[in-house]
Amino acid sequence: MTVELISVGTELLLGNIVNTNAQFLAEKCALLGLSVYHQCVVGDNEERLSETLKTALGRSDIVILSGGLGPTEDDLTKETCAKVMGFSLVEDPATKSRLEQYFANGIWKEIPDNNWKQAVIPEGAIILDNDNGTAPGLILEKDGKRVILLPGPPDELCPMFQSKVTPYLRSIQPEMIFSRMVKICGVGESAVEEKLLDLIENQTNPTIATYAKVGEVHVRVTAKVKSEEEAKSLIKPVIKEIRSRFGDYVYSTREDETLEGAVVALLKKYGLTVTTAESCTGGMLAARLINVPGVSEVFKEGFITYSNKAKRKQLDVNKGTLKKYGAVSEQTAREMAMGGVFATTADVCVAITGVAGPDSDGEKPVGLVYIACYMNEKVWVEHYNFRGDRGKIREQSVVKALDLLRRAILDNYRK
Amino acid sequence: MTVELISVGTELLLGNIVNTNAQFLAEKCALLGLSVYHQCVVGDNEERLSETLKTALGRSDIVILSGGLGPTEDDLTKETCAKVMGFSLVEDPATKSRLEQYFANGIWKEIPDNNWKQAVIPEGAIILDNDNGTAPGLILEKDGKRVILLPGPPDELCPMFQSKVTPYLRSIQPEMIFSRMVKICGVGESAVEEKLLDLIENQTNPTIATYAKVGEVHVRVTAKVKSEEEAKSLIKPVIKEIRSRFGDYVYSTREDETLEGAVVALLKKYGLTVTTAESCTGGMLAARLINVPGVSEVFKEGFITYSNKAKRKQLDVNKGTLKKYGAVSEQTAREMAMGGVFATTADVCVAITGVAGPDSDGEKPVGLVYIACYMNEKVWVEHYNFRGDRGKIREQSVVKALDLLRRAILDNYRK
Repeated sequence: MTVELISVGTELLLGNIVNTNAQFLAEKCALLGLSVYHQCVVGDNEERLSETLKTALGRSDIVILSGGLGPTEDDLTKETCAKVMGFSLVEDPATKSRLEQYFANGIWKEIPDNNWKQAVIPEGAIILDNDNGTAPGLILEKDGKRVILLPGPPDELCPMFQSKVTPYLRSIQPEMIFSRMVKICGVGESAVEEKLLDLIENQTNPTIATYAKVGEVHVRVTAKVKSEEEAKSLIKPVIKEIRSRFGDYVYSTREDETLEGAVVALLKKYGLTVTTAESCTGGMLAARLINVPGVSEVFKEGFITYSNKAKRKQLDVNKGTLKKYGAVSEQTAREMAMGGVFATTADVCVAITGVAGPDSDGEKPVGLVYIACYMNEKVWVEHYNFRGDRGKIREQSVVKALDLLRRAILDNYRK
Repeated sequence: MTVELISVGTELLLGNIVNTNAQFLAEKCALLGLSVYHQCVVGDNEERLSETLKTALGRSDIVILSGGLGPTEDDLTKETCAKVMGFSLVEDPATKSRLEQYFANGIWKEIPDNNWKQAVIPEGAIILDNDNGTAPGLILEKDGKRVILLPGPPDELCPMFQSKVTPYLRSIQPEMIFSRMVKICGVGESAVEEKLLDLIENQTNPTIATYAKVGEVHVRVTAKVKSEEEAKSLIKPVIKEIRSRFGDYVYSTREDETLEGAVVALLKKYGLTVTTAESCTGGMLAARLINVPGVSEVFKEGFITYSNKAKRKQLDVNKGTLKKYGAVSEQTAREMAMGGVFATTADVCVAITGVAGPDSDGEKPVGLVYIACYMNEKVWVEHYNFRGDRGKIREQSVVKALDLLRRAILDNYRK
């Protein structure tokens, strides 16, 4: 079956935002064994949207639209789809009461008048309740074609697709698709591809695809099969082979496990608590660890020491070290990591100090970052020369810090 | 004039990469006063590409294609465009010698055979030399239509567009476009639209559009004009009117100023330094402030106090307060903010404590967040019931904390 994606929104046409929804939906459709041959972006304009939808219905089995379900006058995706497909619009009592509840629990005392528009739906549509916002998702079925309408905000679209659209698409798709992910940190994408070239070139079923993320590479192994058992027998040996080629660079083979999730799991496994000492990343590392639910068992407190004075006061970094080697140095990183452990009850401390730019500190180049990890009276220190803007340099630093923490624990405990 | 963007590439259809080229090109076209009404993505497939191009030529003045100019068999954008538009292909000696030089200077000793394909161009095309790769860009003009072909890699496409395509497009576009942005925090999108409804409904030139961001709404005012002076006289009164309707909710009218940037500017203006005391957001607030270049003048250090013990130790929160009211309470937020100021040399402290979920702490509901700001012996405290997952609750908390800090400074100093 073929899928066509239509993203609706003037912000996309004006280039105000990047179309991450299209990437998310395309990846998920590929995983479900659905072929996406066309993606379109069109504005909140009835005539052009209507034309785009008609073209899509003429050449694709399933059309997924995102955006334009909001409460404002501009939003007309639902209305246009209903018109093109010949559905009449009715108020849905269940959606209306969901909206009432949503607003009753929220910070708004009164419901804006125009929000009631979101309780109006095409008669006979399948309604997908929105757990993270007001606009419901909708599925319209007619003449063998299926049109799926999803809200535009990614934090509403993604969970709705995962929990409600995926089971629906699975139910109408006769082929079974299974896939597993191998998540690698510490090796670049071309190096990963080169190391897997023989497997990639000879692939038929399962297939192997690599995805580059910030500081990580994800390798997806996908099989088209008749049973779960067949899937296992096809996929398992390939996963095993990939694992054996990358060893400890593989941090997870679980689809939903993040790098910080893998690190927190490892800390729990060895009964360790961790603290953080951050300069240029200023809390980003701690924030990522704390995004893992249940982190309170392993993370109690962290330090943001942006100034030299704070490094001395909070982490007891030596005045002479700062003077002799500078704040961005192996020595300072080392003392920050040690200081974090001594100032708390934590077993491990990860420290980051670097020049995030845009201006250099005079001596050290923009992008130079030192990362240290202290545990059991041992220190691991690494340095990197990152490229990119301030945000990108800080983001890469955090990934490398999480990875250093992971490798240090493995190095220290798994013997 | 209207522009249509066609991105060519299987990686986009499979969701392997995000289409940042489309965002870049759309934004640049909007700034040049060109209207983008359609964006398409299609794979390296002659039939579908040819059909997509024909449709685009039928409805748009200018078509910009990106991708599919590489040296491999798969790459067929140039060949397909030449066929559809009736151009014959010839080898271009200048491009051939540029390729020879490129490889002579590069790391390759021999030129891969298939690279010569890139010296073949549609006869009569305008050639855009590629300063960062092998594939030249091309402009084909015929029957009043213009087709622009650009290489797919962003580090080749972006500089080529800036240095070669922009002057070309300026030369064929008589109209000038100016726009200004009003950035609002603390009012929802529907409420903003309701308050601007009369302006939006009667708009012709300039036009007014709203964009929802997390916790913010941006309002863009755009005018098509003949001179910069005319632009000013059209846009200025509208900006003034919007400002007067939203007052202090407007945090900036500068295109490139972020909320944290506005807060840092305000701190600098009043000579204030700030510290942060974070529980559930665990460093996110500090990280956002520290993303502002030059923040070192106003931010020296911050506290991540995830456990109760850390709140007591680092911020001197009273044991009795934690016991009586709990960590997520107005009282604790207040003491955290006061403790941050007393523990440092900072003038102001912003504190966040809340239940980010997914599990509640037993008594308090997921999403309940207290935010406090202490300065000049005064405390401002607010609480919110946020929705969404852990990440969304934390992100909204940070926006509200930045906004509270901003409003507290205005409240305290601007009298």
